[in-house]
Amino acid sequence: MIVDGINVVRELLNADCWIDKIVAEDNGNRDILSLVDRARAKGIKVEVLSKVDYDKRVKTKNQGIMAYVPNFKYCEVKDILLEAKRREEKPFIVILDGISDPHNLGAIIRTSECAGVHGVIIPGNRACEVTDTVYRTSAGAVTHMKVAMVTNLTRTIKELKEQGVWIYALEAGNKKLYKADFTYPTALVIGSEGKGVSRLVRENVDEVLSLDMFGKVNSLNASNAGAIAIYEVVRQRSR
Amino acid sequence: MIVDGINVVRELLNADCWIDKIVAEDNGNRDILSLVDRARAKGIKVEVLSKVDYDKRVKTKNQGIMAYVPNFKYCEVKDILLEAKRREEKPFIVILDGISDPHNLGAIIRTSECAGVHGVIIPGNRACEVTDTVYRTSAGAVTHMKVAMVTNLTRTIKELKEQGVWIYALEAGNKKLYKADFTYPTALVIGSEGKGVSRLVRENVDEVLSLDMFGKVNSLNASNAGAIAIYEVVRQRSR
Repeated sequence: MIVDGINVVRELLNADCWIDKIVAEDNGNRDILSLVDRARAKGIKVEVLSKVDYDKRVKTKNQGIMAYVPNFKYCEVKDILLEAKRREEKPFIVILDGISDPHNLGAIIRTSECAGVHGVIIPGNRACEVTDTVYRTSAGAVTHMKVAMVTNLTRTIKELKEQGVWIYALEAGNKKLYKADFTYPTALVIGSEGKGVSRLVRENVDEVLSLDMFGKVNSLNASNAGAIAIYEVVRQRSR
Repeated sequence: MIVDGINVVRELLNADCWIDKIVAEDNGNRDILSLVDRARAKGIKVEVLSKVDYDKRVKTKNQGIMAYVPNFKYCEVKDILLEAKRREEKPFIVILDGISDPHNLGAIIRTSECAGVHGVIIPGNRACEVTDTVYRTSAGAVTHMKVAMVTNLTRTIKELKEQGVWIYALEAGNKKLYKADFTYPTALVIGSEGKGVSRLVRENVDEVLSLDMFGKVNSLNASNAGAIAIYEVVRQRSR
């Protein structure tokens, strides 16, 4: 997979993500020169090409630098539970019920990674996969995050419940987000941009939690809603 | 200003936003037909055009329906303080220090509107303005939100402090977000995507607040960070 752009490559280097190779254009840009130096210092293979040769390699937008990174490798749900065990923490899982916008998926994975979430679960059939855009918008956080792709989200939810995980869906509901106790093993279900949490999933969660809404627009952007809930778990667990 | 797309027009209608006119393509799409019906029922002027005529009107992407909405009218900072007074609430202001991505600006305005923020302040010189993309990504929330554009953010911050507003910047700092007391008049400063909060602004705020970070990627997407802080204010004030 190729991700391009000065900011992305900088973020990949900052986050010590694995990079197969960096290809840069020899155009005298100081930002690019500095990234090339940093990559070389880390032992990453770097090719510097003339503008003509660089343009031949690039398909879409061209900022003069791109990184070749491994295609994303999904894990299994049990690996997420093992990760929690390894860190000696109560499981903290984010389940995305049909997020279709790669910017939202990237932002949620980034926030999850910062918040210490053990893993993200996405459905395989009707959602955004981990693409180069997700890679970029997550600021490289996907490379540090366990992401499981499952065929049947409802079955996965039932299995997690059997493992003692409390499943909460974020949607207009009776109970306020802040009233839930997230110090127990927790999975947060975040619904899709247009349709929210799907019916079957909603029927299978332990509780539906909602945010106070004071405006005329009665729903948040999916990644913003997710971020608020994810950090409410962090807040409660940090006390 | 023209905003196009089925979801956007639906959201504008849901949120009772002012619409000058709706133009739709006569292509038998049920979603479009239903939106046309709803618009007519609200007394909004609707033109239904043949595909050929519709395509002539459209400049960029084409989903078969578009809404003509008034250009955005900015307010002044004093209008935001008056709005707080009118609602008999302690001021709750969001200050965006150089957000440049219209998707982030739209998402933050949407979250602010849902959270009951009294107004958003943006700098005029080096930031994203309220464009059709902001309109769309805010799900129409901009039409319900007071947005002031100021020439000098530092001066505005000093003036707000004189009015008794506590100014908090979100950035890596010593104090945790959750330790601040947001029951007083509050303004949250959210930094730009790449550079965070600018130096002059940081030197003039009352406190710098930070979120717990447990991952390798050490910063959140600007709109996600903003959403978390905005809803922490809501949580504290709802107790």
